Amino acid sequence: MDNTQEERLKRQFDFILESDKEKYIGRQTYLSDGVRKENDAEHAWHMALMAILLSEYSNEPVDVLKVVTMVLIHDIVEIDAGDTYAYDEEGKKTQREREVKAADRIFGLLPKDQGEKFRSLWEEFEASETCEARFARAMDNIQPAMLNAAAGGKAWRDRGVRLSQILERNKNTASGSETLWEYAREQFIEPHVGEGNIKNE
Amino acid sequence: MDNTQEERLKRQFDFILESDKEKYIGRQTYLSDGVRKENDAEHAWHMALMAILLSEYSNEPVDVLKVVTMVLIHDIVEIDAGDTYAYDEEGKKTQREREVKAADRIFGLLPKDQGEKFRSLWEEFEASETCEARFARAMDNIQPAMLNAAAGGKAWRDRGVRLSQILERNKNTASGSETLWEYAREQFIEPHVGEGNIKNE
Repeated sequence: MDNTQEERLKRQFDFILESDKEKYIGRQTYLSDGVRKENDAEHAWHMALMAILLSEYSNEPVDVLKVVTMVLIHDIVEIDAGDTYAYDEEGKKTQREREVKAADRIFGLLPKDQGEKFRSLWEEFEASETCEARFARAMDNIQPAMLNAAAGGKAWRDRGVRLSQILERNKNTASGSETLWEYAREQFIEPHVGEGNIKNE
Repeated sequence: MDNTQEERLKRQFDFILESDKEKYIGRQTYLSDGVRKENDAEHAWHMALMAILLSEYSNEPVDVLKVVTMVLIHDIVEIDAGDTYAYDEEGKKTQREREVKAADRIFGLLPKDQGEKFRSLWEEFEASETCEARFARAMDNIQPAMLNAAAGGKAWRDRGVRLSQILERNKNTASGSETLWEYAREQFIEPHVGEGNIKNE
């Protein structure tokens, strides 16, 4: 192994080891049994599995490997910036600034070519303009709705979440997949409005 | 949405929700800070990220999406069969039987086409004969070695692991990637033999 290759490998493993910290970033979503909340790494794994199984429902044909890569790294900036809860309006004001700084540092660990590629995939996810990004974001919204429904609506009740907040958060979910948004609304969200776990006022 | 599509979606989400249980399957590997051990979902996420970043070192060119899919589901049978520790010789005697039964049930939740595809990818990983399977298995061995090294060799010390056991477990890692096996041996394993965290007798 020559020095150039060893230096490249060292940078790749520096990033891979740093990414281990995603397993400590807690989210507000309970696992399906409602006992503990999931972390960013578990969430990303679940989304990647969903993206592979459900890509047939994307409104437009997608490059599945691109979606999966995007999904696997979409929360990595939270190692520095922390998880900003979907309905935390104060936190969201500084979210972009905190996350850009984190992206500079974390993607900067990688060899230049891979750092630029991952950074650009992260920006693409954030911008939500390509079909891959829209489909990835649909996974990001549907995965917690599925778990919240399975856990009896506990996370929604705990936080007093309103239907209007869920609809606002999901205003672009149908632009990734109309079919999946229809299914998620009917199967995961509406029953919990009916049961009072999601406030409807 | 017609009935056929709704039935297909229901089966897909049954599987996706069932797979949530992987987050409860504990492994013997500590996270990099040595405080808690990781679970199957976190391990699979980490391996998928590694597979994408390190595919350039595969001995043979691989279909990266295939490797990633394989990696994401490779431990899903442990939902029923439990995690069999790499150096648990008793547990390994019944491992295959327990895992095949689990595969029948869990992949059977999916629509037939996807269930067969995932089952076949799992069998391919188990058989370790294709270049994708060999590379995926290299990730499965290198990821815990990296974490064990980062955590100061704690998991190796706890279990009194011998170098000969690690080399036996890794006897095919070089057939996935000679470069990565060389790097892992030099950077993750040998220093811990020197420090006495891995027994060398």
